[in-house]
Amino acid sequence: MIRGLTFATIIATLTALSAASSPATAPTSAAPAFVNTLMPQPSQLSVQEGRLAITPSFTTGTDQFRDARLDDAIRRSLDRIKTQTATLISTALAADKATARLVVSVEGPGDAVQTVDEDESYSLDVTPFGARLRAATVVGAIHGLETLEQLIQSDMNSYFVPAVSIRDTPRFRWRGLMIDCARHFIPVDVLKHTLDGMAAVKLNVFHWHLSEDQGFRIESKAFPKLAGLGSDGFFYTQDQAREIVAYARDRGIRVVPEFDMPGHTGAWFVGYPDLASGHGPFHIEHEFGVFNRVMDPTRESTYEFLDTFIGEMAAIFPDHFLHIGGDENNGIEWKANPRIQNFMREHGLNDTAALQNYFNQRLLQLLEKHGKRMIGWDEILTPALPKGVVIQSWRGFGSLAAGAKNGYSGVLSAGYYLNIKSSAEVHYRIDPLPESSDLNPEQQARILGGEACMWTEQAGPQTIDSRIWPRTAAIAERLWSPRNVDSVDDMYRRLALESLRLEALGLTHISHEEAALRRLAGVQQIGPLEVLASVLEPVTFDDQASQQHPNQLTPLNQMADALPPDPPSHHNFEALTRAYLQDPATRTQEKAELVADFNTWIVAGPGTLQLIAGSPQLAKIKGRAHQLAELGTLGLEAISYLSSGLPAGARWKAGKFAVISEAEKPQALVRFTVIKPLRDLVTAVAEAPSK
Amino acid sequence: MIRGLTFATIIATLTALSAASSPATAPTSAAPAFVNTLMPQPSQLSVQEGRLAITPSFTTGTDQFRDARLDDAIRRSLDRIKTQTATLISTALAADKATARLVVSVEGPGDAVQTVDEDESYSLDVTPFGARLRAATVVGAIHGLETLEQLIQSDMNSYFVPAVSIRDTPRFRWRGLMIDCARHFIPVDVLKHTLDGMAAVKLNVFHWHLSEDQGFRIESKAFPKLAGLGSDGFFYTQDQAREIVAYARDRGIRVVPEFDMPGHTGAWFVGYPDLASGHGPFHIEHEFGVFNRVMDPTRESTYEFLDTFIGEMAAIFPDHFLHIGGDENNGIEWKANPRIQNFMREHGLNDTAALQNYFNQRLLQLLEKHGKRMIGWDEILTPALPKGVVIQSWRGFGSLAAGAKNGYSGVLSAGYYLNIKSSAEVHYRIDPLPESSDLNPEQQARILGGEACMWTEQAGPQTIDSRIWPRTAAIAERLWSPRNVDSVDDMYRRLALESLRLEALGLTHISHEEAALRRLAGVQQIGPLEVLASVLEPVTFDDQASQQHPNQLTPLNQMADALPPDPPSHHNFEALTRAYLQDPATRTQEKAELVADFNTWIVAGPGTLQLIAGSPQLAKIKGRAHQLAELGTLGLEAISYLSSGLPAGARWKAGKFAVISEAEKPQALVRFTVIKPLRDLVTAVAEAPSK
Repeated sequence: MIRGLTFATIIATLTALSAASSPATAPTSAAPAFVNTLMPQPSQLSVQEGRLAITPSFTTGTDQFRDARLDDAIRRSLDRIKTQTATLISTALAADKATARLVVSVEGPGDAVQTVDEDESYSLDVTPFGARLRAATVVGAIHGLETLEQLIQSDMNSYFVPAVSIRDTPRFRWRGLMIDCARHFIPVDVLKHTLDGMAAVKLNVFHWHLSEDQGFRIESKAFPKLAGLGSDGFFYTQDQAREIVAYARDRGIRVVPEFDMPGHTGAWFVGYPDLASGHGPFHIEHEFGVFNRVMDPTRESTYEFLDTFIGEMAAIFPDHFLHIGGDENNGIEWKANPRIQNFMREHGLNDTAALQNYFNQRLLQLLEKHGKRMIGWDEILTPALPKGVVIQSWRGFGSLAAGAKNGYSGVLSAGYYLNIKSSAEVHYRIDPLPESSDLNPEQQARILGGEACMWTEQAGPQTIDSRIWPRTAAIAERLWSPRNVDSVDDMYRRLALESLRLEALGLTHISHEEAALRRLAGVQQIGPLEVLASVLEPVTFDDQASQQHPNQLTPLNQMADALPPDPPSHHNFEALTRAYLQDPATRTQEKAELVADFNTWIVAGPGTLQLIAGSPQLAKIKGRAHQLAELGTLGLEAISYLSSGLPAGARWKAGKFAVISEAEKPQALVRFTVIKPLRDLVTAVAEAPSK
Repeated sequence: MIRGLTFATIIATLTALSAASSPATAPTSAAPAFVNTLMPQPSQLSVQEGRLAITPSFTTGTDQFRDARLDDAIRRSLDRIKTQTATLISTALAADKATARLVVSVEGPGDAVQTVDEDESYSLDVTPFGARLRAATVVGAIHGLETLEQLIQSDMNSYFVPAVSIRDTPRFRWRGLMIDCARHFIPVDVLKHTLDGMAAVKLNVFHWHLSEDQGFRIESKAFPKLAGLGSDGFFYTQDQAREIVAYARDRGIRVVPEFDMPGHTGAWFVGYPDLASGHGPFHIEHEFGVFNRVMDPTRESTYEFLDTFIGEMAAIFPDHFLHIGGDENNGIEWKANPRIQNFMREHGLNDTAALQNYFNQRLLQLLEKHGKRMIGWDEILTPALPKGVVIQSWRGFGSLAAGAKNGYSGVLSAGYYLNIKSSAEVHYRIDPLPESSDLNPEQQARILGGEACMWTEQAGPQTIDSRIWPRTAAIAERLWSPRNVDSVDDMYRRLALESLRLEALGLTHISHEEAALRRLAGVQQIGPLEVLASVLEPVTFDDQASQQHPNQLTPLNQMADALPPDPPSHHNFEALTRAYLQDPATRTQEKAELVADFNTWIVAGPGTLQLIAGSPQLAKIKGRAHQLAELGTLGLEAISYLSSGLPAGARWKAGKFAVISEAEKPQALVRFTVIKPLRDLVTAVAEAPSK
């Protein structure tokens, strides 16, 4: 009921937005109700009557412009539709227009190098007799094909696409995902799966963080010691980088490389110590944090080096932007170096911020020479910079808005840090251009969009999928869909569907948990442990950092690494409890589900303890197994009071709140996902007055 | 109890084999019993007292020969040990011999190109104070490192290696896995994971089946149209092939490429029609089966082509062997071509077998010119062939023995066809050199070993892991371990452990099932469906071929594709029932487990039907969901009679046998794994005499 209601609301909202919407969007009694399975939501959707059956007689093809990129995108979509529906769809478009067909009508290829202004819009019209996808560019068509795939549904007899009319264009032009491939190296095949996932939710920028104190991750032929001595052997060859760029372009995704300068550059100096402001010996940093290592901005040789290096990278990365980082330079080595201090005095640079601005100005000239626009983190923003520079804000909307008022375009990342391990809801509520903003239209246009950020202090190749997905899909919707698409319940309903689609693309965000639990337990049958795991999630980034002090060599094989942040239990249990508490006396279905859950928690205890017994790593969560049973008992008691309407004894609530508070404490790097709703349940219980 | 008993038997067997065994292998009451976790079993193992703790102070290093391959192997092992045990082990060998250390003592690099006669033996001595691995070659050390990893165990407090003394050498020199990458293309990353799995169980030959009527899968620069027109775009570049060869060599694995000739060559002719005996037009064959397409062995231009081609491939594949296929040429196009018939008459070639022999003789000269030995399937064996040619038998031990008696070396594949979907037990019982063989020692030495074969008519990149693993580990043990290591129960016990280790290497043979079921059901929570799935497996190759008639384009996304052959339920349920039936009146533990299983089957019914309802593909197994509940009910009834000792009514057994027989029939490409033990249960019930 709740889901249906929420969904109806969404449809109404979307329909209201749609100028071209059909007046008759309400499902008739004869036809099954339309189920909205799209993520991100399109800007305009109207539901029509009927549905288009997917059968082997269905054919597809183009009737205007086509190129290899469009053909490949159609082929990929048809391959996935084949896997999903067991239906082979021919790309030999049937001439007979009476046969069901998908016709893709594209006006032209779009930009030779995809730009931030690329026309990404498309329209999709599905009737019971066929479908037509229209777009100005191949990128628009790529997005439309993903929408078509997301629309596919089934009943027991057949697969079909509901008849709809969609007009869609993104709210923001820059919808990115940054991956830090420096603190932990992420292999090419993992990145390719990630790009598939990005395309599925219409993200269009892969921001590739390639250098850090902890590693320099791309081959330079001009300066072979960068990766040669600065990567521990983990780096991308230039061929691999080109492969990623091509793979991304085929999916409508730009690749913006980041070379963080002048700080975060320790790994450069292992091979090229003359670039550094401080003294050697230099080493690859295996700890995490902000370090003093920084480039020497006073030597001409630094700029000669960077000129050659940027030229080399510009040939690999065709995107118009190059990200220079610019963050977290603490200036310590600049202050400690008499020669640099002398230079600052000579050039009238009063502080290290001024020196960094000097460096940025020089860097800007080099970028312009090689045809690149500059983007960097908040810190690069100084009044001396020209307006063409783009600011990526990790500090918040405030600094983004301040930049916009001063004429700078910006991209929001504050609030989108995946590594913090917040819920999808938290990210979903962050808007790069909130309704409360006082920016005028011109200033608003400078807010290009946002980027989810996946920093990898606490994630590696095996765990990164579950740190990125499915939460990034919620951010992608925030960046693509109209601002008023904001129902958290409906977002979670569609996120669950999208999560399965992402898994079918080869992402391991779901399967990793089970595989990791099997490895930890050393047996294949882990039922009780899965029950416990289903209501646990890793602690926040800060809690893990302070409790574990991880470094680059820390094994990512604890219980906390097995678990995804914000697992389905988080929202589902909260929604279930909320529904139950609306009227405990009559909500029998919700009551039954809660009772079943609580019993499962209690029953899982002994089995979990048995599975834990053989593993030093699992033994750390022994306390959690006991707590789960306690929480189950507490839940049953609360339900009993609430459904009967009888009050609890005088000290019952205080005792239960104590149990909940104890369970709430982070322990062994994991936390329960069900704390708030359990507290709500106990709170709702009436208590007999104490005597 | 049963497991302990079986295990004790195995240890006794191994100990008896061991000339160097310690007299005291029985665990003392103070120490926990040694648990044998090795697969394949070593040729000699004796258990010592105590255990070596794995702690951060542990270090490892080499004290004799070392090279990059050895260093890499040690680093890989330590990485995996780190992931398993959360313990960082330094490769800076502690000078202090009192500190626990692993010292790897290797005499030399071994063959520059690994040969079939490479010394693969090693010894491993673990005491509470350290471990020493000795080997003549790096390949031997690689095997020893895998053994060390397999020995690692844990209790709640720590990880440790039990003190053992192992002397190990393989029973057979050729222990292979063939993968047909032609009928379905298998990507490089899947192959790399497969090579990791092969190394884990000490297989040493990757037989790479690269060409077929259905596709030509490797780039030729001399003949670019081979892959260019013959692969549908799915082929390995030469760089990728070299990458696989290097990856395999690093793991002690030879790569033997196969270019099947003169039959199975349809895909060659799309680009090079002059090679063919018949007329064009030629196309890539998308159906499966034996086709008439065959090379023209009468033209000199064919040999000129093959001379260049083999020379090119010889430079990519350094192995001393090249596989020429040679199977299933039906001779039809040779008989139909007057020019070829004329050639046969002129050369006194009386039949097509004689013509194929002529072709093989010419091919042999080319292989010798390029430094390669010939290996081919049974059909190439003719008296005219020199003794250096190796025969791979898909027909059976008979043809292998006949070859050995005639002086030919051979490799057994009959009985090891993974695509048939037999149980691990079936493969495990096949011996390349059975005890009953009448070969003399000289002839026995010609039996080089065996090869598991993964033909891919019914498997693709997503499903191949679950078709290869874990069953191939049982075949690997048959090929490595002494003949009398033959307890099926103990094999399955250790196979379950090995299966988890293989998963930790990145193989998806376990996780694929859950992911595929989620995709089919369209929801993340699939509990009831998993219950049904756990007692189902795909039908045999022949049943699937006759029911489905798959071709290369058939989607591999049915329930049958989600399920692994020979899942754990197959052996576990059989063993449980067997134990229970030994004395139904007293076996209360087994009774309780059976009752729990049967109840789970009954309870899963409604939930399964609900999950099935939304999917046309799952709807096909609706009958199976009903049958599962019936089988559960039947099981409970049988247990009730057996435990009470009361007889069933007169027609009870006949009725239940009818239910079982109905459930036994293949349906929707899946079959139950529990048929035989259920029939045993019903058979054991006493029946009241009919009146």
